[in-house]
Amino acid sequence: MKPWDGIISEDEQRAYRAAGFGRPSGLGQRPALLIIDVQYRTVGTKPMPFWDSIKEFPTSCGDVGWNAVGNIKKLVDLFRARKWPILYPHVAPKVAHEGGRLAEKVPQIMNIAAHGYNFVEEIAPQPGDILVPKKHPSAFFATALASHLIDLSVDTLIVTGCTTSGCVRGSVVDGFSLNFRVSVPMECVYDRSRVSHAVNLFDMSEKYADVLPLDELLKKLDGLSPRQS
Amino acid sequence: MKPWDGIISEDEQRAYRAAGFGRPSGLGQRPALLIIDVQYRTVGTKPMPFWDSIKEFPTSCGDVGWNAVGNIKKLVDLFRARKWPILYPHVAPKVAHEGGRLAEKVPQIMNIAAHGYNFVEEIAPQPGDILVPKKHPSAFFATALASHLIDLSVDTLIVTGCTTSGCVRGSVVDGFSLNFRVSVPMECVYDRSRVSHAVNLFDMSEKYADVLPLDELLKKLDGLSPRQS
Amino acid sequence: MKPWDGIISEDEQRAYRAAGFGRPSGLGQRPALLIIDVQYRTVGTKPMPFWDSIKEFPTSCGDVGWNAVGNIKKLVDLFRARKWPILYPHVAPKVAHEGGRLAEKVPQIMNIAAHGYNFVEEIAPQPGDILVPKKHPSAFFATALASHLIDLSVDTLIVTGCTTSGCVRGSVVDGFSLNFRVSVPMECVYDRSRVSHAVNLFDMSEKYADVLPLDELLKKLDGLSPRQS
Amino acid sequence: MKPWDGIISEDEQRAYRAAGFGRPSGLGQRPALLIIDVQYRTVGTKPMPFWDSIKEFPTSCGDVGWNAVGNIKKLVDLFRARKWPILYPHVAPKVAHEGGRLAEKVPQIMNIAAHGYNFVEEIAPQPGDILVPKKHPSAFFATALASHLIDLSVDTLIVTGCTTSGCVRGSVVDGFSLNFRVSVPMECVYDRSRVSHAVNLFDMSEKYADVLPLDELLKKLDGLSPRQS
Repeated sequence: MKPWDGIISEDEQRAYRAAGFGRPSGLGQRPALLIIDVQYRTVGTKPMPFWDSIKEFPTSCGDVGWNAVGNIKKLVDLFRARKWPILYPHVAPKVAHEGGRLAEKVPQIMNIAAHGYNFVEEIAPQPGDILVPKKHPSAFFATALASHLIDLSVDTLIVTGCTTSGCVRGSVVDGFSLNFRVSVPMECVYDRSRVSHAVNLFDMSEKYADVLPLDELLKKLDGLSPRQS
Repeated sequence: MKPWDGIISEDEQRAYRAAGFGRPSGLGQRPALLIIDVQYRTVGTKPMPFWDSIKEFPTSCGDVGWNAVGNIKKLVDLFRARKWPILYPHVAPKVAHEGGRLAEKVPQIMNIAAHGYNFVEEIAPQPGDILVPKKHPSAFFATALASHLIDLSVDTLIVTGCTTSGCVRGSVVDGFSLNFRVSVPMECVYDRSRVSHAVNLFDMSEKYADVLPLDELLKKLDGLSPRQS
Repeated sequence: MKPWDGIISEDEQRAYRAAGFGRPSGLGQRPALLIIDVQYRTVGTKPMPFWDSIKEFPTSCGDVGWNAVGNIKKLVDLFRARKWPILYPHVAPKVAHEGGRLAEKVPQIMNIAAHGYNFVEEIAPQPGDILVPKKHPSAFFATALASHLIDLSVDTLIVTGCTTSGCVRGSVVDGFSLNFRVSVPMECVYDRSRVSHAVNLFDMSEKYADVLPLDELLKKLDGLSPRQS
Repeated sequence: MKPWDGIISEDEQRAYRAAGFGRPSGLGQRPALLIIDVQYRTVGTKPMPFWDSIKEFPTSCGDVGWNAVGNIKKLVDLFRARKWPILYPHVAPKVAHEGGRLAEKVPQIMNIAAHGYNFVEEIAPQPGDILVPKKHPSAFFATALASHLIDLSVDTLIVTGCTTSGCVRGSVVDGFSLNFRVSVPMECVYDRSRVSHAVNLFDMSEKYADVLPLDELLKKLDGLSPRQS
């Protein structure tokens, strides 16, 4: 059972099979974990249903975000144990006159309270992790992310955070275009629309990445040999 | 009635309203038309139902593509009359050892017959139009598209072609990130999945672009003053 | 008399003429001023000869930098009077584990005192100016500079600051590649080597930009018509 | 004896030492060879002195180019023997209306005879090598070069070809910015100006790359362990 079953019809899924989409990318040997935009502004300062949570931050996804936080924690623990790199692409507080198109499409984004930009404590950056401030959907756009990944000899990206249909999707497309192997653990990404979340997982699964259950990914990662220096 | 009504629930649409998404970008003063991947490999050499058309090219979208061709033609006529720039981001034939991640996710893409790469004649490039060969979803990734648009002093992109959930979506996200104003005429983009098509239009409409009926866009474009040299 | 006369021989200059290099780019209609890395770490906290100044900051260029500051001031005044955009690409303080190749080539760069990163007061950013933090030589690399310039409908870059052979050169090459018209006022850029400074001006003049005296540039800019909204 | 001794004064070289520039990058474990623009348009169809050669192609560098060809051949032989990747960033024939800034700065570049774009036979691409067509100085700008290098898990670039002060320099700066280790074998790059060639080698050596004699580089490369799959 895939998250998109019942939303993308069987007939349409057959159309992708016929066209030859959706084959696996697999893992390489040198993974990095991307945790995108897991800041209080996207989940709220504590777990609450969506409609309550957006009273605190209009950009919060509420409960589904907190579920993802708990799941991402399992990846963080594994990556710390294996000393694999963890990177935090995140939005820095906005400066009014630098809004560009974003300020027009989503004006409220320009007025988030400062503490909304803090990282969620449960999976916050530790010394040695890499912060990647960004202003656009993709974690690669106008950032040094590619330079960091090349410096670390990374060949595989595990992409987590939010939103599935926004920054996760944009980062996955760019990571794929740069020829990184990309995996998206489905319980570790979140969005404010269940349908858009599911369809974006479907799109990524068919064209850009391996979209798979967290448990399956943890097992695969655990099987990787220790990293060669 | 939006293409995503009935697919994205009213409740979820309300969630985006509450979060402040989906405000208009509008047009600037210097538009360019992008026609992405309208090659026979994406529509077939003649209009046919999807399941017949993929027998000719596994990557064809069939009938829905041909409907879009007729609609894009109206934009082409206007842009030619006004001497506004038309650009053709398109996929060039694949070279085997250059496949990278794409060859893994969609192996059949490496074996399209050569004539599938020809532009659909009804709206094919004319002398003076700009060809932008690409290898990745976004028309901006690893291409000179941004350089062309800056050279032409373009501030507004009209994005058409296919697929809605692939190269159109990727190009719209990058165009938005570069601060171009982006409009997507909904009858001028196409895909192999009705649901993914609709949800991607919804995503773009909420976050990156104005998604609007062709007639409405034609009227707006027609109202732009002649371009200053 | 060009800065490179006597350094690049007449014979070699003739070789470029024969090959057809060095034609003018000219100005467009919508200029922006880039002031690159004019921070105390590149000039010292007060004018001093080079060998004294580097005792304060090993990366200082000394007196030649302060001469440039006075010259850049004239451009700043004109740009403020005309309400043309001014952008400040600059290096933010370094974080140890993010050094990459730079930390290897120039280890001392990782240990500059914090106040060295302050902007030189005489031409420091004012509210409304745009800050562009960067980590690499080119002001375009891994930054939102292109997005800012597109948002501002800029077609012409006036590039100033330091070093001529480093960040100025890198930014000019990328600005040229993006099809902006680029001018470099020769008294407004500086470097620690007189010869490398002159030869880089020559390279840019032959291939990428108009390299000209400040007075001539001021006159040309002053002649531009008021910007259309 | 460095190529820039006698051009960059000892005093100025001491200034770079004092500022802490010029430390080595070294080689990584997975090198790739870039051969940039070694086409007949940059050397002529046979070895001739500069002033004769430019009668054939105004953009030719003449004899110095042919010397480099012989030297690059030694690297090609080693890379083929070790099955390390070889990539050919090169300029494709120009299309008139796509000239942008380049057509203004160097109009003659728009009128090179077609056979000038052929690769020099002695070191021409073989099946399995990767072609990287480009339109701008840097081999990375608006090309898939970074994607190719990531796909190949490359960590080290050996940059050869021409011109030292143009496409070689631009590619080295971008390769450095992306955190690849970059080496430039000094006898394998060429230019039309001896002084600009030397000063650009100096700049790259101080800030971006290891600039070293071919023999020394061949020895180091030969000592690398066989590549791990």
